[in-house]
Amino acid sequence: MARWQPNAPQRLALAALELFEERGYDQTSVIDIAERAGLTKSTFFRHFRDKREVLFGGETMSDLVTAAIAGAPAAASPLEAVAAAMDAAGREAFTPERRDFSLRRRAVIAAHPELQERDALKGLAITAAMTTALERRGVAPLTATVTAQLASLAAAIAYERWSAPANTADYSTTARRALHEVRSAAAG
Amino acid sequence: MARWQPNAPQRLALAALELFEERGYDQTSVIDIAERAGLTKSTFFRHFRDKREVLFGGETMSDLVTAAIAGAPAAASPLEAVAAAMDAAGREAFTPERRDFSLRRRAVIAAHPELQERDALKGLAITAAMTTALERRGVAPLTATVTAQLASLAAAIAYERWSAPANTADYSTTARRALHEVRSAAAG
Repeated sequence: MARWQPNAPQRLALAALELFEERGYDQTSVIDIAERAGLTKSTFFRHFRDKREVLFGGETMSDLVTAAIAGAPAAASPLEAVAAAMDAAGREAFTPERRDFSLRRRAVIAAHPELQERDALKGLAITAAMTTALERRGVAPLTATVTAQLASLAAAIAYERWSAPANTADYSTTARRALHEVRSAAAG
Repeated sequence: MARWQPNAPQRLALAALELFEERGYDQTSVIDIAERAGLTKSTFFRHFRDKREVLFGGETMSDLVTAAIAGAPAAASPLEAVAAAMDAAGREAFTPERRDFSLRRRAVIAAHPELQERDALKGLAITAAMTTALERRGVAPLTATVTAQLASLAAAIAYERWSAPANTADYSTTARRALHEVRSAAAG
C-alpha cells in the first residue's frame, strides 16, 4: 500500500505524461499511450473514460477520501475527519516517490486548457465526495459543505507546495499545515 | 439599470431557454436560437463563445462582481466587499423580474451534463475574479481566496433559495443571510 507500484493505471499515467511532454497533448492518442505503457486500448478504457482522465486517476481520489472520512473515529470533528483523509492521501497517493511525477503533471496540466478544465471539475467532484462522506457521519449539510470546501482549498495549496522542487516535507504534514492556515483565514 | 431590459444577450438567453425546454439542448442550434430571438448568428457569437455559454451571460457576472468589489469603500473588510458584490448582483442581475427565468434556467441546467459542467466552471471563474478583485484591494492572498470561496458558496445557496417558487425575499437579502450562515459554519 505505502510504496508506489507500477500497476496499470499508473503505468498508463506515466506513459501519457511522457508523451504529452514529448509531443503535446493533442498529438497523443489513447493508442499511443497504451502502446508506450505496454498495454492495450481496452485496458486503458477499463481505467479511464477518456484521454483527459488519464492524469486524474479516475475515481481513485474520491474513493480514497470517502473511505478515510468514513473510517475516522466516531468522536472526530468534521475538521479532524478531513485531516484523516489528507493523511490517507499522503500514505496512498502522494507518496515521496510520486513527487517528481506530480511536479511534471502540474506543468502539463498548466499548459493545456482542456486538462485545466478536467482538473477543476475533478476538484469539485472530490469536494462533493467529501461533503457526502461528512454528511454520512451525521454532520449538518452546511457544515459538511463548508468543511469540504475549506479542505479542498487546503489540499490544492498543499499539493502545490508538496510537489514544489525545493520541498522536503511529506504531503500529510504539508496538508495539515495548509488546513490550519485556511481554517484561520476563514475564522479571522 | 435596475429593471431588466430585453437587450440582445437577454433575448438570446430567453430564446435559448425556451428552445431547450421545448425540444432539448442537443436538438437546438445556435441558428435556431438567433432566429427565435429575431437576431443573427453573428450577433450570437458577439455575445457568447458557444451554445453552452448562452445561459451563463459571458463575462457579465465576473465583470459585475469585480467592479463592485473594486468600488466598495476603502474601509470595507473583505467580507463587506463581497457582500457589496452580492448587493450589486441583486440590483443588476438577479432582479425580481428574473426570478421565473432563473428557476427555469436551473431546471434546464440540471437536466444537461454539459450545462452542469459549464455552470461549475463558471462558478470557479467568478470565484477567481472575486479573489483577484480582493487582492487588488490589498487583501492577503490566502484571505482573498478563502473569502471568495465562502462568498461563492453563499451565492450558490442564495441563488437556489432566491429562485425557489415560494421565495419572496430579494436576492441581496437572501445572499447576505447565506453569507452569514456560511461564515458562521466556517468559524464554528
